[in-house]
Amino acid sequence: MLRTHTCGELRIENVNEHVILAGWVQRIRDKGGMIWIDLRDRYGITQLIFDESKTHPDVIKKMRTVGREYVVQAAGKVLERFSKNDRIPTGDIEIFIDEFIILNPAKVPPFTIEDDTDGGEDLRMKYRYLDLRRRPVRENLLLRHRIMQETRNYFSGLHFAEIETPFLIKSTPEGARDFVVPSRINPGEFYALPQSPQTFKQLLMVSGFDRYFQIVKCFRDEDLRADRQPEFTQIDCEMAFVTQEDILATFEGLVKHLFRSIKNIELEDFPVLNFNEAMRSYGSDKPDIRFGMKFVELNDLAKGRGFNVFDQAELVVGICAPGEAERTRKQLDELTDFVKKPQIGANGLVTIKYNIDGSIKSTIDRFYTGDELKKWMEKFEAVPGDLVLVLAGKTSQTRKALSELRLKLGDELGLREKNTFAPLWVVDFPLLEWDEETKRYYAMHHPFTSPKLDQIDLLDTNPGQVMANSYDMVINGVELGGGSIRIHDRKVQQKMFDVLGFTQEEAKRQFGFLMDAFEYGAPPHGGIAFGLDRTCALFGGSDSIRDFIAFPKNNAGRDVMIDTPATISQEQLDELRLQLKKD
Amino acid sequence: MLRTHTCGELRIENVNEHVILAGWVQRIRDKGGMIWIDLRDRYGITQLIFDESKTHPDVIKKMRTVGREYVVQAAGKVLERFSKNDRIPTGDIEIFIDEFIILNPAKVPPFTIEDDTDGGEDLRMKYRYLDLRRRPVRENLLLRHRIMQETRNYFSGLHFAEIETPFLIKSTPEGARDFVVPSRINPGEFYALPQSPQTFKQLLMVSGFDRYFQIVKCFRDEDLRADRQPEFTQIDCEMAFVTQEDILATFEGLVKHLFRSIKNIELEDFPVLNFNEAMRSYGSDKPDIRFGMKFVELNDLAKGRGFNVFDQAELVVGICAPGEAERTRKQLDELTDFVKKPQIGANGLVTIKYNIDGSIKSTIDRFYTGDELKKWMEKFEAVPGDLVLVLAGKTSQTRKALSELRLKLGDELGLREKNTFAPLWVVDFPLLEWDEETKRYYAMHHPFTSPKLDQIDLLDTNPGQVMANSYDMVINGVELGGGSIRIHDRKVQQKMFDVLGFTQEEAKRQFGFLMDAFEYGAPPHGGIAFGLDRTCALFGGSDSIRDFIAFPKNNAGRDVMIDTPATISQEQLDELRLQLKKD
Repeated sequence: MLRTHTCGELRIENVNEHVILAGWVQRIRDKGGMIWIDLRDRYGITQLIFDESKTHPDVIKKMRTVGREYVVQAAGKVLERFSKNDRIPTGDIEIFIDEFIILNPAKVPPFTIEDDTDGGEDLRMKYRYLDLRRRPVRENLLLRHRIMQETRNYFSGLHFAEIETPFLIKSTPEGARDFVVPSRINPGEFYALPQSPQTFKQLLMVSGFDRYFQIVKCFRDEDLRADRQPEFTQIDCEMAFVTQEDILATFEGLVKHLFRSIKNIELEDFPVLNFNEAMRSYGSDKPDIRFGMKFVELNDLAKGRGFNVFDQAELVVGICAPGEAERTRKQLDELTDFVKKPQIGANGLVTIKYNIDGSIKSTIDRFYTGDELKKWMEKFEAVPGDLVLVLAGKTSQTRKALSELRLKLGDELGLREKNTFAPLWVVDFPLLEWDEETKRYYAMHHPFTSPKLDQIDLLDTNPGQVMANSYDMVINGVELGGGSIRIHDRKVQQKMFDVLGFTQEEAKRQFGFLMDAFEYGAPPHGGIAFGLDRTCALFGGSDSIRDFIAFPKNNAGRDVMIDTPATISQEQLDELRLQLKKD
Repeated sequence: MLRTHTCGELRIENVNEHVILAGWVQRIRDKGGMIWIDLRDRYGITQLIFDESKTHPDVIKKMRTVGREYVVQAAGKVLERFSKNDRIPTGDIEIFIDEFIILNPAKVPPFTIEDDTDGGEDLRMKYRYLDLRRRPVRENLLLRHRIMQETRNYFSGLHFAEIETPFLIKSTPEGARDFVVPSRINPGEFYALPQSPQTFKQLLMVSGFDRYFQIVKCFRDEDLRADRQPEFTQIDCEMAFVTQEDILATFEGLVKHLFRSIKNIELEDFPVLNFNEAMRSYGSDKPDIRFGMKFVELNDLAKGRGFNVFDQAELVVGICAPGEAERTRKQLDELTDFVKKPQIGANGLVTIKYNIDGSIKSTIDRFYTGDELKKWMEKFEAVPGDLVLVLAGKTSQTRKALSELRLKLGDELGLREKNTFAPLWVVDFPLLEWDEETKRYYAMHHPFTSPKLDQIDLLDTNPGQVMANSYDMVINGVELGGGSIRIHDRKVQQKMFDVLGFTQEEAKRQFGFLMDAFEYGAPPHGGIAFGLDRTCALFGGSDSIRDFIAFPKNNAGRDVMIDTPATISQEQLDELRLQLKKD
C-alpha cells in the first residue's frame, strides 16, 4: 500500500507514530515559516504541517509546487495539535512531514471541491468524477452501498435467492416504450432491454424458487422528466405459496430492517389504507401521513343552500388547518392563487375562519348561517383558531387539487419534517384504468396482476369496477415500492389479455411462454419492486434521485461527461443491416 | 403462508404435529389400498400417505385426479415411517393426509423432472422454467447466489463500495464488438452496452472511492462459441493507492474466502508464475498445475545429430508421462493422431520409452545413442517406467500443441481431479500483441494497462518487447480473472493510444473524458475482473457456464424460451428513425 493509514483514521493515541498518508490536497495555508496542508481522501481529512526552520528544504520546495487536488504521498510523525479542531475526527493531531512525493499533479478544478461548491449543475455533470469527490455526493453513494448490502443480508437471511434475469429480452409494446438492441447475428431482429424482470421472476416461481430477489437495472425509453432516468435500479422480489398478508409482512420487514440498521430508527407497524379510503381522506394514492388534515366531505351540509358553486359540484370537500385562522386576507388570496394555478386546477377556494373568540367568518357567509357553519366546524373537529379550506368540483380533480393544497400547508406549517418517517401500505387498487383517447382499458399495475378472485365475473360486465390484489408502500408521500398478487391461471391471464384488447395471436406471440408455463404447475405467487434510487433519496433526505446515482444522465437522456448517445460508424450500421432515416 | 413447513424440513422430532405442506407432485405410488405421493419443493421431498380404509373418501378421490407436477396443498399429521429412507433428510417421516387441495393442475411435462432427465438440450432450453425445477440446476443457481453473497460480504468487510456504473454508455470500436441501443430522443445517435465498466471504475478511483466493486452484467456482440454468452456477469473491482502485490493479496483473499465459506477448503498461498515461465513450462498462460509434467526444452541435446525434423525446428520440447512406458504401439499411434489433428497442429510425435528394465526405446533410435537418450531421461528426471513425448517446430505452435497433449495425458492419468484446486497467478504479460492481418499492435489486456515503468522508452523503439503490469488468476487451467495496474498519467495514456494507431482526434473523441480526468489528480490504481459465470462453474464442478445461468441464450444468441431476438413493429422503427436494409 502507498499509505499506512487513511486520512480519517489517526487519533491522539497515534501520537509519535511514523505514518504514511496519501490523498488529495484540499487546502494549503502558508504563513511564511509554517505551512499546513489539509490532505483529503474518502475517509476524512488530516492536517499535514511543514516548518521552514525544521523541515528539510527539499521537502519544503517540493511542497510549495503543489496546488489544490494534487495527489500526494506524505510521511511523517503524528503530533498533538496545539489548537485542536473538534469539527473533524482527526482534529486532535497533525503530521509533521519528513517525506513528500507528488503522485500526480492536478490542474485547477473547474469548481471548488467543497460541501457547498461554486459549480453549477452542468459543469458538475461534465466533470462528474470531480463532483463525486465532494463529501455530500460521496456519502450518498456510500449510503446506497449500505442500503444494497443490508437489503441483500435481509433477504439472504430469509432464504431468498438472488437470481440474475437476462437483459437482452423481447420487446412487448404494452406499458412504457422499450429500448431495443439490434441483433447482428439475426439481421432485422432486435432484443429489448427489460423495463422490469416481471415475467422472468414469475417463471422462477413456476420453477419452484419460492423466494427470489434481485437488485437490478431496468430501462424505460420515456420522454424524460426532471426526476426520471432512462436506466434505473429496482429491488425486485417475488414469493410463492403466500397470501398478500405474507408479502406485506415480509417487505415491511425489509423496510424496518433498513431503517433500523442504517438510520437507527425503529418503525411501528405500518397502517394499511385501501385505495378508496386513501383517495377519500387524502386525495392521493400516496398520502403523506406525517400529518393529519384529513379531507372532510361536505356534500350533505353544503348543498341545497343556494350556493351555485357547491350545488353544481360533484364533490364539496375541505381540510382544516389548525391554528391558521389568523391568516391575513393577502395570505388567503395567495392560497386561492395557488389552487387556481393550471397544474392544480381548482376554480376557487372557500375559506372559513373559526376565530379564537368562537365567531366564524367565511367567504360564503351569504349562503350559510352561523349555526350551519358551526355544524361544519364540528364535522371538521375544528377548534377556535382553526382555518377551514374548501374546494368543490368534479370528484377526482377536486381531490387532486385539495391534496396539493394540503401538502403545501403541511410544508408551510412545518409538518413534513425530513427526519420523521410515516410509512403505510395502500392496497386494493382498481385493476384497470380507462383511457379516453385510445378507448380501451389499461392495466393500472400491469397485465399480470390478479383481480380480486370474487370479482372475476365483473371482468365481463363492468371491468372498471374490478379491484386488484395490489399494494403500494408509501413513505412521506413517496411511493417506494409497489406490487401485486399475480395471476397464475392461464384462463384468467387470457381473460385479462382479452379485456386489455390483445388478440389471441398477440397475446400468444408476446406472452405465450408465460401462459404455457401456467399450464405446467404454477404456484400461487406475488411480489413487489422497490425503486432503489428513490429509496436512497428518502434515506438521504433528498428529493433528487440523481444525487444518488454515480453517473446519471441529464434530462435529455445524455451523459454529458462521456458524451453519449453518439453517432456510430457506417461499418457498425452496415454490420447491423440498419440505415438511418433521413428527414 | 400456504404452508407451515417446507418439504425439506420435517424430522422425527416433528412426529404427531399437524402440518401443512405445499409443492409439486414428484411421484405417485398407488398400491390399491395405500397411496404415497412424493411432494417436492425447492427445499426437498416429503412423503405423503393416503390409506383408503382411513382417509376421507373425498380426499382420496381428489388425490386420485392429480398427476406429475400438479401443485397441491396437503395437510395432515406427521408419522414415523415403517421403512425409512436414509437417502433423504425427511426419510424418517411421512404425512398422513387429511386435507388436500389442488392449487394448480399441470399438463404432463415434456421431459422428466429428475436429476437425470430424459429431455434433450433444446427441449430443456425451450421449457427452461421446468428444467430449473430439477435439483442439479436448482443447486447451481443457489450456489451462484451464495458466491455472490459471500463475495459482497468479503468486499464490504474491507470497505469496498459497490457502485453501479451505467449500462447506456458509448460505443468504442477498440476491443470486441459492442451491442448498440438507438436513442429515440437523439435520432441518429446510439448508446452502447458496456463490455466492462472499465473507464467508469477508473473514474471512480479518480473520484477517490479507493475501493470499488460491482457484480455486473456485461455485453459482447461476438460470433458465439459454445462457451460464450452475449451477456455475462463480472465481479468487477478496482483499488487506488496500491501496488500490484496489494492487489494480488486482496483478490487472492477473496478466492480463499470463497473456497473456505462455500467449499470448506483452505487454500495455500497462490504461487506466482510470470508469463514467460508459464509459456516455457506449460505452453499456456493458464496452466493447469494440479499435476506436473512440466515442459523440458531439448534444443541443446536434440539438435546437430542429423535428425532433420529437430535440426530445422525452432524448438524441441517434451514432457514425461510417469509410469506410461507400457503403452502399446496402438496407444502411442493414437497420441500421434491426436497431436496431428488440425486444431492441435503438430506434424508428428516422438516417443521415448524408458523401460522398466532401464533400456530405452524410441522412434528416433537411428539418430541418438542410448547414452545420449539417457541424458535426455536425466533432463526429464525420468525413472524407468516413464514415457517421454517430444514435439518440435515453431516455438509458439509447438508449445500450444504440447500443452494440449499434456492436458490430454493429465485427463487420461486421472491427474485432473475435479475436487482438487490448484490456483496460481500468472503475471507480467506482454503489453501488446502484433496482428499480421491488420499490421498493427493490439493491447493484450486493454489500452488502459500500464507498461512496466522502466520499459516506457521501449514503446518508441520496440513496443512488442514491453511488458505490462498485468496479472491473471488461474485455477485448474481456467482463467478466473485478470487485471492490471492502470495508466494514471495522461501522457503515458496518449502514448499508448499512439502505439495502438489511434489518431489524436479518435483518442480524444472516444476517451477524452478519461484523459482529461487524469489531469485533475488521478491516483495510482489498478484492478481486476472475475468471470462470475466461470467461477460458478468451477465451484460447481462443471465445464459449462450455461448450467449456472438462469435463462441462458443458445449458440446463436437466441433465447428459445421467450423467442428473442424478434422483429419489432414498424412504429417502433419509425420512432427510432431507423430502416432495415434489404439484401
